[in-house]
Amino acid sequence: MAAEIVNPRSDSDTDQEGGGEPLDSFDPAFALHRGGKMAVQATVPVRDKDDLSLAYTPGVARVCTAIAEQPELVNDYTWKSNVVAVVTDGTAVLGLGDIGPQASLPVMEGKAILFKQFGGVDAVPIALDCTEVDDIVETVVRLAPSFGGVNLEDISAPRCFEIERRLQERLDIPVFHDDQHGTAVVTLAALRNAARLSGREIGQLRAVISGAGAAGVAIAKMLVEAGIGDVALTDRKGVISAGREDLTPVKREVAGFTNKAGIAGTLEDALAGADVFIGVSGGTVPEEAVASMAEGAFVFAMANPNPEVHPDVAHKYAAVVATGRSDFPNQINNVLAFPGIFAGALQVRASRITEGMKIAAAEALAGVVGDDLAADYVIPSPFDERVAPAVTAAVAAAARAEGVARR
Amino acid sequence: MAAEIVNPRSDSDTDQEGGGEPLDSFDPAFALHRGGKMAVQATVPVRDKDDLSLAYTPGVARVCTAIAEQPELVNDYTWKSNVVAVVTDGTAVLGLGDIGPQASLPVMEGKAILFKQFGGVDAVPIALDCTEVDDIVETVVRLAPSFGGVNLEDISAPRCFEIERRLQERLDIPVFHDDQHGTAVVTLAALRNAARLSGREIGQLRAVISGAGAAGVAIAKMLVEAGIGDVALTDRKGVISAGREDLTPVKREVAGFTNKAGIAGTLEDALAGADVFIGVSGGTVPEEAVASMAEGAFVFAMANPNPEVHPDVAHKYAAVVATGRSDFPNQINNVLAFPGIFAGALQVRASRITEGMKIAAAEALAGVVGDDLAADYVIPSPFDERVAPAVTAAVAAAARAEGVARR
Repeated sequence: MAAEIVNPRSDSDTDQEGGGEPLDSFDPAFALHRGGKMAVQATVPVRDKDDLSLAYTPGVARVCTAIAEQPELVNDYTWKSNVVAVVTDGTAVLGLGDIGPQASLPVMEGKAILFKQFGGVDAVPIALDCTEVDDIVETVVRLAPSFGGVNLEDISAPRCFEIERRLQERLDIPVFHDDQHGTAVVTLAALRNAARLSGREIGQLRAVISGAGAAGVAIAKMLVEAGIGDVALTDRKGVISAGREDLTPVKREVAGFTNKAGIAGTLEDALAGADVFIGVSGGTVPEEAVASMAEGAFVFAMANPNPEVHPDVAHKYAAVVATGRSDFPNQINNVLAFPGIFAGALQVRASRITEGMKIAAAEALAGVVGDDLAADYVIPSPFDERVAPAVTAAVAAAARAEGVARR
Repeated sequence: MAAEIVNPRSDSDTDQEGGGEPLDSFDPAFALHRGGKMAVQATVPVRDKDDLSLAYTPGVARVCTAIAEQPELVNDYTWKSNVVAVVTDGTAVLGLGDIGPQASLPVMEGKAILFKQFGGVDAVPIALDCTEVDDIVETVVRLAPSFGGVNLEDISAPRCFEIERRLQERLDIPVFHDDQHGTAVVTLAALRNAARLSGREIGQLRAVISGAGAAGVAIAKMLVEAGIGDVALTDRKGVISAGREDLTPVKREVAGFTNKAGIAGTLEDALAGADVFIGVSGGTVPEEAVASMAEGAFVFAMANPNPEVHPDVAHKYAAVVATGRSDFPNQINNVLAFPGIFAGALQVRASRITEGMKIAAAEALAGVVGDDLAADYVIPSPFDERVAPAVTAAVAAAARAEGVARR
């Protein structure tokens, strides 16, 4: 799947007048980013007037006319059915927060090249200069004719929930907020394998999620969908429970389908006796709280760059430890999911990405580990070449099974 | 400048289930368009976790932070400064008219690959599902953080004039309606060389333009800017003159700076004794009218695929004949202008494309012909590799001279 790497601007004169050379020599990340990380390429020849007469006028007019008469042909004769808009408003970029659309572009470009490299999916960064829900929704609806899917990225909660829901209602192409569902899919895959390793069913586990933002809420929904025994979410004020008076609409909804045990109190209170800790908060969990978890617990401390529990500490008490970092085993990394999920959805021209497609993605991802399953290998490496094809095939099959495929 | 051609989807299974095979075998334009004409590529390696830690987290966060603190760095460290949005609403596509955004996509993709192939400029098709001026303007303003320039394409008159003006007022990146200015630049280049060939100055010529849409109005403005002796525009009701009561606001403005001779009446009336005919209307000009033009006239019959005057007829009376077709000499083709104009503007990070930059582009384009000037060679071939570098350099220099360059 690896395309040849060509940087058309690497020998350009961009270095002569910019103010960035000190940054480039100081930090290899700047040197690598100079001129950007992506480009467009023609996939058909434009060498002479015969080529031009097919790729452009007059030949192109016949293709346009055919699409005007039979709109679904746009998927056969343009790049639409293989291109995803990576849409952000720059309000929740990595751990940096609201840095605005332009400063978010390096992340969106990074996302776009991961789409291409791992899933063969073309992707275009679209960083929007607006933050109102209505404005973002209207803008993306107007853009949609050009794209086969929309990947929402780094849009702050709770707006991200409403934006995704309203866009999916209005569009017949997949709309997917990766910070929610990508994270949830990979987390579920790791949890399935951890459970398999310890001979337990998901239904026997009680999980605690620290962080009730986009990722935390989506993980909770997905674990419930997958049949988790119980799951509680915590925010800065403690465990989310129906009894709390200070809940946002989204958290009130969460309270309705989580925390069957009816736990009130702090994160530490919830962790006592819990089987699974899932950290997507960026805070720190005291060692005593980890120690209070059930025998054979799983600790997924996914905050980046500083896990909520350092793996060295977690290993003292837990049977399986995962983080968001590439320098520890068991990295929970969204790139394991989103390229294959979109590739599968686009392959069958799915109108949306259903819960069933996400569960299928998690199962396929878990399945790649196979017989090599071990405490330090519950999730494959992002560079395992089996991952994207497995996820793609599973998602495409699930789309067909769920009736949202159009081919 | 020619990039390697790779079609990642050429061996895919897209042929198995689509309904398009009959079209593909019937018409090579369909076969060529299958799967689209463009793709995205990474320009940096993503082979292992070290690559990922620079191109994506955690390294990318340092680049984002630097841009948040010093916004102009976005041009150094993302693809923004080399990527143009090719924006349409699908209302005036080629000669096909209002076929809507999706059916326009093959043209926008074609435009995008011409940008890349001829100017080294990355371009992304953005076909909008809205046609109100306010909606298009707002949408493009919101998209602008991701792009270094906006090429408006195939948007019907008179909305195209207001959309371009309002967008350029609100954005600090170039906004360029190619159907207007690209056509005008190439026409002026051809006219300059035709005048040089016949030993005349532009100021000695009286021109008549058939068609008062986007191209006609822009050509008239540019000819006046370049010092034409006189120019009259005609629409379906005849010559545009201050005395007419039925003029739109744009045509009223045109009446103010054209037709110094005060001609009233039909196209045929205006052509009697005229030195230059410029056809951008798609109608037909009777042979008698061509015969009535001045000795040594120039006939630029640019309608596609059927020129307003067939070249065989025009040659009976005119000293220089040009068309919009690639199968006759002297093809007036926008691809001679827009790739170099944007490449030059982006190279110096121009905030807009001024009249002076367009005139410079026309002069550079005319200059490529040099000593080879002849009646059947007043404009270079689109495949002449000297064209884009010459236009790029001239536009960049003009941007500096006009004070709109930012590097």
